[in-house]
Amino acid sequence: MMNTFMKQAILEAEKGLRSGGIPIGSVLVRHGKIVGRGHNRRIQNDSAILHAEMDAIENSGRQTADFYSECEIYTTLSPCSMCSGAILLYGIKKVIIGENETFVGEEELLRSRGVDLVVLNNAQCKTMMAGFIKNHYDLWNEDIGEE
Amino acid sequence: MMNTFMKQAILEAEKGLRSGGIPIGSVLVRHGKIVGRGHNRRIQNDSAILHAEMDAIENSGRQTADFYSECEIYTTLSPCSMCSGAILLYGIKKVIIGENETFVGEEELLRSRGVDLVVLNNAQCKTMMAGFIKNHYDLWNEDIGEE
Repeated sequence: MMNTFMKQAILEAEKGLRSGGIPIGSVLVRHGKIVGRGHNRRIQNDSAILHAEMDAIENSGRQTADFYSECEIYTTLSPCSMCSGAILLYGIKKVIIGENETFVGEEELLRSRGVDLVVLNNAQCKTMMAGFIKNHYDLWNEDIGEE
Repeated sequence: MMNTFMKQAILEAEKGLRSGGIPIGSVLVRHGKIVGRGHNRRIQNDSAILHAEMDAIENSGRQTADFYSECEIYTTLSPCSMCSGAILLYGIKKVIIGENETFVGEEELLRSRGVDLVVLNNAQCKTMMAGFIKNHYDLWNEDIGEE
């Protein structure tokens, strides 16, 4: 199951790449079923907040706290401060991360709050990001808030 | 200046209330000028991510990391985990909070990362939220992720 859902997150990342965006994808899963999916839309939507995880959460609709607390989230890249904050807000208890070599987000904070993290060290996730950053270093740094 | 900008955040909160939403407002200020304003849109947009601070950041457009790091953000209510995460992502160095009696967000985390917090203990901010929660306890708990 873990790889099935990560595959879907990767498909989202690829969709983002094809539409000119940063290849990061995410799916929100509840009781073994995808309830929200999304990808980074910074470039496509000129959005400062639609990271992949945020997009997946948003696309799950306006759900109750109970609903989110029964979800786990899959993301192709280690979640940044904003996305980690959303995970904490909604009590999402498990985060499955494609890779954390390109970028390490707030993994320590999430763990300290009792969130279960699994890092898959997925080669495809790494290759996608390496390719994008090589060609669009400026866009990547703009997104992740580095100078 | 601090009260002028908080007044604008309150105007945003009131705008949100008039459109049936949760009365929390925010403005993003750079070099003494408002560059983004917004309010909580959970109810109006059925949005899980458009808290006031997120809306203000989003409405400032897709800016560079440099741009955000020169901003301060005004919010009528102490920022939750998600909004605090966005503040950390973008290196916003100062947060001016209308009140933190109704809800205390990630103030400790923000302070531990060097963000300057000012709590105004504003009576109007408290009255707005107290009135809303009294009439819509379910909507408030749905938004803030409590059960």
